[in-house]
Amino acid sequence: MSNPEIEAQLAPLRERVQEQGNLVRDLKAKGAPELDVKKAVAELKARKKLLEDKELALTPSVVSFDRAKMEDLLKRRFFYDQSFAIYGGITGQYDFGPMGCALKSNILALWRQYFALEEQMLEVDCSILTPEPVLKASGHVERFADLMVKDVKTGECFRLDHLIKQALEKLSKDQGGHSGFAGRELADVLAKYNIKSPLTGNDLTEPIEFNLMFATQIGPTGLVKGFLRPETAQGIFVNFKRLLEFNQGKLPFAVAQIGNSFRNEISPRSGLIRVREFTMAEIEHFCDPVLKDHPKFGNIKSEKMTLYSACNQMDGKSASQVEIGEAVATKLVANETLGYYMARIQQFLLAIGIKAECLRFRQHMSNEMAHYACDCWDAEILTSYGWVECVGCADRSAYDLGQHTAATGVRLVAEKRLPAPKTVEVSEIVPNKQALGKTFKKEAKNITDALAKLSLEEITKVEQQLAGDGQYKLTTADGQSHELGKDTISVKHSSKTVHVEEFIPSVVEPSFGIGRIMYSLLEHSFQCRDGDEQRCYFTLPPLVAPIKCSILPLSNNTDFQPYTQKLSSALTKAELSHKVDDSSGSIGRRYARTDEIAIPYGITVDFDTLKEPHTVTLRDRNTMKQVRVGLEEVVGVVKDLSTARTSWEKVTEQYPLFEQQEASK
Amino acid sequence: MSNPEIEAQLAPLRERVQEQGNLVRDLKAKGAPELDVKKAVAELKARKKLLEDKELALTPSVVSFDRAKMEDLLKRRFFYDQSFAIYGGITGQYDFGPMGCALKSNILALWRQYFALEEQMLEVDCSILTPEPVLKASGHVERFADLMVKDVKTGECFRLDHLIKQALEKLSKDQGGHSGFAGRELADVLAKYNIKSPLTGNDLTEPIEFNLMFATQIGPTGLVKGFLRPETAQGIFVNFKRLLEFNQGKLPFAVAQIGNSFRNEISPRSGLIRVREFTMAEIEHFCDPVLKDHPKFGNIKSEKMTLYSACNQMDGKSASQVEIGEAVATKLVANETLGYYMARIQQFLLAIGIKAECLRFRQHMSNEMAHYACDCWDAEILTSYGWVECVGCADRSAYDLGQHTAATGVRLVAEKRLPAPKTVEVSEIVPNKQALGKTFKKEAKNITDALAKLSLEEITKVEQQLAGDGQYKLTTADGQSHELGKDTISVKHSSKTVHVEEFIPSVVEPSFGIGRIMYSLLEHSFQCRDGDEQRCYFTLPPLVAPIKCSILPLSNNTDFQPYTQKLSSALTKAELSHKVDDSSGSIGRRYARTDEIAIPYGITVDFDTLKEPHTVTLRDRNTMKQVRVGLEEVVGVVKDLSTARTSWEKVTEQYPLFEQQEASK
Repeated sequence: MSNPEIEAQLAPLRERVQEQGNLVRDLKAKGAPELDVKKAVAELKARKKLLEDKELALTPSVVSFDRAKMEDLLKRRFFYDQSFAIYGGITGQYDFGPMGCALKSNILALWRQYFALEEQMLEVDCSILTPEPVLKASGHVERFADLMVKDVKTGECFRLDHLIKQALEKLSKDQGGHSGFAGRELADVLAKYNIKSPLTGNDLTEPIEFNLMFATQIGPTGLVKGFLRPETAQGIFVNFKRLLEFNQGKLPFAVAQIGNSFRNEISPRSGLIRVREFTMAEIEHFCDPVLKDHPKFGNIKSEKMTLYSACNQMDGKSASQVEIGEAVATKLVANETLGYYMARIQQFLLAIGIKAECLRFRQHMSNEMAHYACDCWDAEILTSYGWVECVGCADRSAYDLGQHTAATGVRLVAEKRLPAPKTVEVSEIVPNKQALGKTFKKEAKNITDALAKLSLEEITKVEQQLAGDGQYKLTTADGQSHELGKDTISVKHSSKTVHVEEFIPSVVEPSFGIGRIMYSLLEHSFQCRDGDEQRCYFTLPPLVAPIKCSILPLSNNTDFQPYTQKLSSALTKAELSHKVDDSSGSIGRRYARTDEIAIPYGITVDFDTLKEPHTVTLRDRNTMKQVRVGLEEVVGVVKDLSTARTSWEKVTEQYPLFEQQEASK
Repeated sequence: MSNPEIEAQLAPLRERVQEQGNLVRDLKAKGAPELDVKKAVAELKARKKLLEDKELALTPSVVSFDRAKMEDLLKRRFFYDQSFAIYGGITGQYDFGPMGCALKSNILALWRQYFALEEQMLEVDCSILTPEPVLKASGHVERFADLMVKDVKTGECFRLDHLIKQALEKLSKDQGGHSGFAGRELADVLAKYNIKSPLTGNDLTEPIEFNLMFATQIGPTGLVKGFLRPETAQGIFVNFKRLLEFNQGKLPFAVAQIGNSFRNEISPRSGLIRVREFTMAEIEHFCDPVLKDHPKFGNIKSEKMTLYSACNQMDGKSASQVEIGEAVATKLVANETLGYYMARIQQFLLAIGIKAECLRFRQHMSNEMAHYACDCWDAEILTSYGWVECVGCADRSAYDLGQHTAATGVRLVAEKRLPAPKTVEVSEIVPNKQALGKTFKKEAKNITDALAKLSLEEITKVEQQLAGDGQYKLTTADGQSHELGKDTISVKHSSKTVHVEEFIPSVVEPSFGIGRIMYSLLEHSFQCRDGDEQRCYFTLPPLVAPIKCSILPLSNNTDFQPYTQKLSSALTKAELSHKVDDSSGSIGRRYARTDEIAIPYGITVDFDTLKEPHTVTLRDRNTMKQVRVGLEEVVGVVKDLSTARTSWEKVTEQYPLFEQQEASK
């Protein structure tokens, strides 16, 4: 990153990012209209993207990756593929075949071990179908939308931001390099949207908001509207009271959930990275808003991380290497709990095989952060699609619990003991039930219910209005208004001694996109053998590899069969997934087939196996080296290798190398 | 079951079932109208249900179960509870709390071990959102419906069969015992449906078919109709070609899938047993239709099973105990593959803790079996709701692959080598492309596509018609008809030598309802301590128990803390879920709390732990006995107990009993 030649090429791009970053700051400082800020931010993002694309273009290791070749292998060996292909397929939906499914399971099992078990989280499993009021409260019904335009003739839909990015790229190309376009022109593009359909050249409609949730009806009446959840988090929030009680009322505690979520993307693309149906693993860590220290922070404080701060992004600067302890100490990262999870996310991603040099944590700039979040960092992984957001890690403050409390009247709060008891003034509304019943009949119950839900502020207002014109207008849950006078209600004041204080907990939320992580991991582990570009394989770590071991009899000689069967039974008993390949074909060719599906170890039964003491060869996928191991021992060795209790290096020190050349394909 | 007193009470009910069974057989034999058969079958089912209810009422062990008490505990300790309760809740949807989620995970992990790993199945993970054409082909769009009626005034919906059953129960009660109603009356009830709304007494609408699938739109255009899958199986069928190829073209092979399915039940009830969103684990075993032997059948052929044959059901007889080998030999069970899976299903259910005496396999009667299935047995588990279908095991023959082949034109077939090559006559349609193009312009391609898909039978018809009036009327995929004459097409005959034969594989499908299994297991393992009805617990086997071990310091003496922490770290390292309870409260009370959430083992740190050699006590939930074990050894002992490598009995032989009485609550 500090190559002076490269830096010289990037300098003008960095400058233009900084220039626009300053413009955004200025606009905000002087309180410019929101639309102007949004336009300026859009251009800032576009300039950042141009800088990033250039940076990546100057990093040869990434560019040389042959995505088509990998995708061909993934398809051919059915890691995953488009859903319903025999029916023409649906974009943005994928089916995981045996290898993809096993890889995903193994990643999730390790995730459970790293987070749920290690941190003693409460794991839950909540409904996917969600009634509308829940997602109204969370803000998804109103705000979970993308802007789209339609071809006025064909009805084809496009995401507006995709079209704008395409237009910008064209613009900058037409004007030679990136130097030609200025803020004004870009703003014009945004303002006018004078872009035609890229498919037909037809006119496009005005941009419309398209909500990304899939809608359906729950129950036979057709009256209960529901959505497929767009994230798993809400299921945790609505269960907060039960979970707090399960934890005996104590904070902090964390809740984990693994499950599918759904987003009706306007134009899904980029393979597994943008899909309509995806598996998430989410954590909601509930804590006291004024106590965001983490007891285990000391364990990880020296973890070195690549942090790309909001400030550096606005200034066109690069990411930098920082110890997480340092980042929290300098307040770059908001608090220990957030920092702890960021470090643990990094440790997890490296453990499954993500390359350290392709991982960074990017802080949300204030203009892209949800309005309720107080700090948010995305773990981004570098792939051939650029930097991809794979894990979000946000301090969401008390937003979600507050919203559901407001919507339901159920107080999603925790209590803590006060250092000393205190006396507080209490105001409450006392309904005159008899008078209410007489005046309002069967409406009386709705009225008393609504009165009981009034906040302290509202009670004060009631008191003022009763003292004023003697009437208060109350709206009940069913939307009806009622005039209440002094004859029906009064306000009572009293004081009481309290020992505990209620508060809405803060939430720190690490949220993992499993499909994206999996795709990135496949890219990072894709390799071709030196000198044989057709022989490709995945270097997936044994811990997550779909199948741990192959058993290959050297030939179809029937003498080998009892040994093959015995090994297969022993591996099953040791709970090791394995694949017997006794098909014809040279041993080298069969090894190549197992390499393609990332099997890390291979046991070969050969003529020496028949002799006493019975031995087999054990082959390592990455080095293609082999050792000779006793028949009785080999399953134990594979078990230790697969659970990371030993390494191939150690195994080669312990057992004699088997030198026979692998037969060529 | 063979108690003569009980049999005397059941005899008249058995007789009436048999009487109706014979009527159904007669009606079918003489080809009576379908509606008459359906009515007679409905009555047969009602009579069977009355017999079953009586049988259960005479079995005291089941009746004495206190469901309300168990449900209270499940709710209180958040095993599971209604979803979105703070928003009023949605019937038929449940959220699994920490204990329910862990229990479910553990059941699924064992399922994977029992089936996917042990049988080397290909596990896949397919899309939930399914486009309409797929579910049209599978028959779900047309047939996956229940009959419902609506209250004409309030719009409230009821399932017709529920209303009829209620009416029958009332009828039989009014007339004293079950002796009063005859076939005619019941048919009248069914024919007239002169039942009022049980809630309002209002009239009801005519019965209408209500499709149980949740509908939505995929993509932003609103034009692609989709459904949430009602079963996971179709995802496997549409991927058949990829899976066969992954298996190198060889049969048999089995594919497994675990995932959620959705059914928009008209009136969900019975807790976890009838819900709108549920987890299934399904297996599709593909095999040659003429080779349904199973290589591992010998391993299980002596498994004793309780089989309730279709014949016995029609005759009002009971289930009987049979060895599965015997059942297949006598053709009671259609073939070895079906029998093998039935035995393995039984082994699995017993391993997780289902009571053997509460498990039976009930064969579908020919009138309830899907028309394509050739044999189907349901594993039914006895609960306080009666016998509940928990696992289906069906030989679905070639139905599904055939349907998708017909719908897509993609041949979902396998090949097998012929014993000897043979010469076959081939008929094919040769289109005169030039003439077609001239006559039909841009329709020509659709026509040639449609011609290529014609079956041999249809080709023969074409030939006959061309020879007759010289015209053949062809319908293309878009539904248009075209008259083709001799100028545009001809039929060519040739012979060729073939070495392989194509065939559509048969499918044997074991399909597990995980929620129902889990609920049944909770019922079977629910217990109260002798002499203390308030102290309830679950005897879940350690293999599936949500948490394997508790750590309880005897008191909040700080000297205990280092030992508690050390044990917790060691358990985490050994991947054992555990719970530290260092809250105040007597040790007996804390044990009772861990019993409630089914923790099988408890480690107590006491004053003897502080002395050398350091020891702890280890307590068994079921017997409440304790042994004294070395601090360094105890984690290994818990690991062996939790993975069924040892038993509590053996542990008590190995370690000294710790005799101190458990402090009373």
